[in-house]
Amino acid sequence: MPLFIPESLLQREKDHVEGFAPEVAWVTHGGDEELQERLCVRPTSETLFCDLYKDIIHSYRDLPKCYNQWCSVVRWEKTTRPFLRSSEFLWQEGHTVHATHEDAEQRTIQMLNVYDDFAREVLAIPMVKGKKTDKERFAGAESTYTIEALMPDGKALQSGTSHNFGDGFAKAFGIQYTDNNNQLQYAHQTSWGVSTRLIGAIIMVHSDDAGLCLPPMIAPTQVCVIPIQQKKDGVLDKAKKLHNTLLDADIRATIDDSDKSPGWKFSEAEMCGVALRIEIGPKDIEAGKCVIVRRDTREKVDCKLEDVVSTVESLMKTMQQDMYNKAKEYLDSHISDAHNYEEFVKAVEEKPGFIRGMWCGNVECEEKIKEDTTATSRCMPFEQEEIDGKCVCCGKPAKKLVYWGKAY
Amino acid sequence: MPLFIPESLLQREKDHVEGFAPEVAWVTHGGDEELQERLCVRPTSETLFCDLYKDIIHSYRDLPKCYNQWCSVVRWEKTTRPFLRSSEFLWQEGHTVHATHEDAEQRTIQMLNVYDDFAREVLAIPMVKGKKTDKERFAGAESTYTIEALMPDGKALQSGTSHNFGDGFAKAFGIQYTDNNNQLQYAHQTSWGVSTRLIGAIIMVHSDDAGLCLPPMIAPTQVCVIPIQQKKDGVLDKAKKLHNTLLDADIRATIDDSDKSPGWKFSEAEMCGVALRIEIGPKDIEAGKCVIVRRDTREKVDCKLEDVVSTVESLMKTMQQDMYNKAKEYLDSHISDAHNYEEFVKAVEEKPGFIRGMWCGNVECEEKIKEDTTATSRCMPFEQEEIDGKCVCCGKPAKKLVYWGKAY
Repeated sequence: MPLFIPESLLQREKDHVEGFAPEVAWVTHGGDEELQERLCVRPTSETLFCDLYKDIIHSYRDLPKCYNQWCSVVRWEKTTRPFLRSSEFLWQEGHTVHATHEDAEQRTIQMLNVYDDFAREVLAIPMVKGKKTDKERFAGAESTYTIEALMPDGKALQSGTSHNFGDGFAKAFGIQYTDNNNQLQYAHQTSWGVSTRLIGAIIMVHSDDAGLCLPPMIAPTQVCVIPIQQKKDGVLDKAKKLHNTLLDADIRATIDDSDKSPGWKFSEAEMCGVALRIEIGPKDIEAGKCVIVRRDTREKVDCKLEDVVSTVESLMKTMQQDMYNKAKEYLDSHISDAHNYEEFVKAVEEKPGFIRGMWCGNVECEEKIKEDTTATSRCMPFEQEEIDGKCVCCGKPAKKLVYWGKAY
Repeated sequence: MPLFIPESLLQREKDHVEGFAPEVAWVTHGGDEELQERLCVRPTSETLFCDLYKDIIHSYRDLPKCYNQWCSVVRWEKTTRPFLRSSEFLWQEGHTVHATHEDAEQRTIQMLNVYDDFAREVLAIPMVKGKKTDKERFAGAESTYTIEALMPDGKALQSGTSHNFGDGFAKAFGIQYTDNNNQLQYAHQTSWGVSTRLIGAIIMVHSDDAGLCLPPMIAPTQVCVIPIQQKKDGVLDKAKKLHNTLLDADIRATIDDSDKSPGWKFSEAEMCGVALRIEIGPKDIEAGKCVIVRRDTREKVDCKLEDVVSTVESLMKTMQQDMYNKAKEYLDSHISDAHNYEEFVKAVEEKPGFIRGMWCGNVECEEKIKEDTTATSRCMPFEQEEIDGKCVCCGKPAKKLVYWGKAY
């Protein structure tokens, strides 16, 4: 899909343009000439896809449709932050069209779960998952679902969203199909995306003062072999053999045989997020072993040379799980409940993390909370509990349990 | 590198901005606010890379540097043409920095040859290769080299370029390094790119009235198995087995077992540029064979079922070579020589293709030729010949042999 959206196309769906127009970059001139119609640099591509759908969708046989693209989008941000909020960012945006509301809802939830599974199982980041309130949902969406991670400073990071548009865009763009009873129907749409913001989440959730700490599954270098006293006879040979053994087992391994000191190499490997380092020196070789050191815990393991591959594989598996567990413990221990406004305000001030509080469903309470505390509603979890009967803000009868928090 | 270039950055190198400013899209507003400085949507990224180089290049030890990115760029075109000329296009742009002019020149030629080899060996497109005249070179470059393909209508298509910038950008941006004698030196740069325009070249050079014809090496579907009388006992089974045999041999194969007629399937496979189709029906199965049909020549080959993989591989190799040979013959038979202006003008009118003609080296002759005939200088070939002593335009002593032609 193209980079530019003509202003008239962006304006087709009322809620969508209202949400995005204030934050788009406008192209007004081509060379020396003023354009007859302004073009916005895509902040997201729903309107472009809709313009395609209206031409290619005619019959129920044409459905469902599923598209995905990786591209840069632009949102004019006043304050930016590396990885978390930048005017231009790379993302993946998926777009689908379905015959029915149910099909669209099913896909919306399916993709949210894909993101949640990926975050947990690959990035080792636990998420809080749920539905956005009307105030926080995507401009033009009927429902927005979100995964929210917790950063070490106690702030929430919206990490991926999935939207059910219902037939709102279809009505605005005239996307209709003939169903199997020969009746004209409006189509139902979804979209979903994650961005390079996830890289920020990985860095913040797992790293420490020594530098990057990366889950083994995504570490570009899983193992770095570091020879000790490498000028001594046979050390470098043995280290290189070890390196090749790891490569042959499809482990992403490197060897640092530069003339830097071992201590310098250790620090560099730590800083760069190498999952495991292997130290091998003359004494190790004599004993037929090496030393494997985990990046996350610094735990040292003596390992027979013939067991290196299986030990590395097992350590990486454990490390991946431990990193998730640590992040999960942090998340779980930074969720607190508030039963009234006093508790709520105190929690925002004193307990970094998510605050669970009941909500009456009125946007006025969300607005008051935001103004008083800067916290916002992050999501209404799928597993609803009634931790209290009253809204944490106004005290009126509560409708929903909400995760609240300060957010990036 | 970012999508936007601040106007002041684009203006840093005088020739570069002169060449590109007339054809860039300008972002002037972010949301409702007018920007203090206009941003252009990158038409190419030299200025962005230079802005990086000046910060990261200090010593000869930092050189060479080599970067590549795939991205969309925007050039404001008045008339557009699918694949060949569009306001936004996807391309690959490589950028390098070197200590010396020689290193830069070597890389410039190396990358031109990479493009030429790729066009010939993978895309089966022969190119005319050489240096651009000063008038036609890239804005800001010291030398531009090009590969030029010939389309069936006799027009040339500039298909890839490689530029040596000398130290011009380095002087404009202050990119200096300390050499091994501790002297401050300006760095030398190159850039080189090909774009989705190559897709246009593939389509135009090889296709025919039946549709796409793609070289087997790049055909997304190399073989389509089409069962004949597929409802007869055993036919579909045998066809599927054949399909799997091909897949197991890493051949990009599909099977069309839809309820369309065989003739329809044949036409569809031809239209989509499937390199080989395999027909298999009851009589073939009885004889233990199938029929393989080449997309380019429609040649039919009877093939024993046990020989399918080797026959397919050999046919694809032959087809790839034959497609190149055909295109090369077309190119060779559409190059004519002109010894004076009368011959030249007549050749442009009557002989579609490249015209070889001597040139005195003055831009006035290029301009006159363009005005009189719309032909332009495409390149000065590396293998120079003196086919005449005089400039084909003005009759003054000739300096260079030039390939001239109308171009897309």
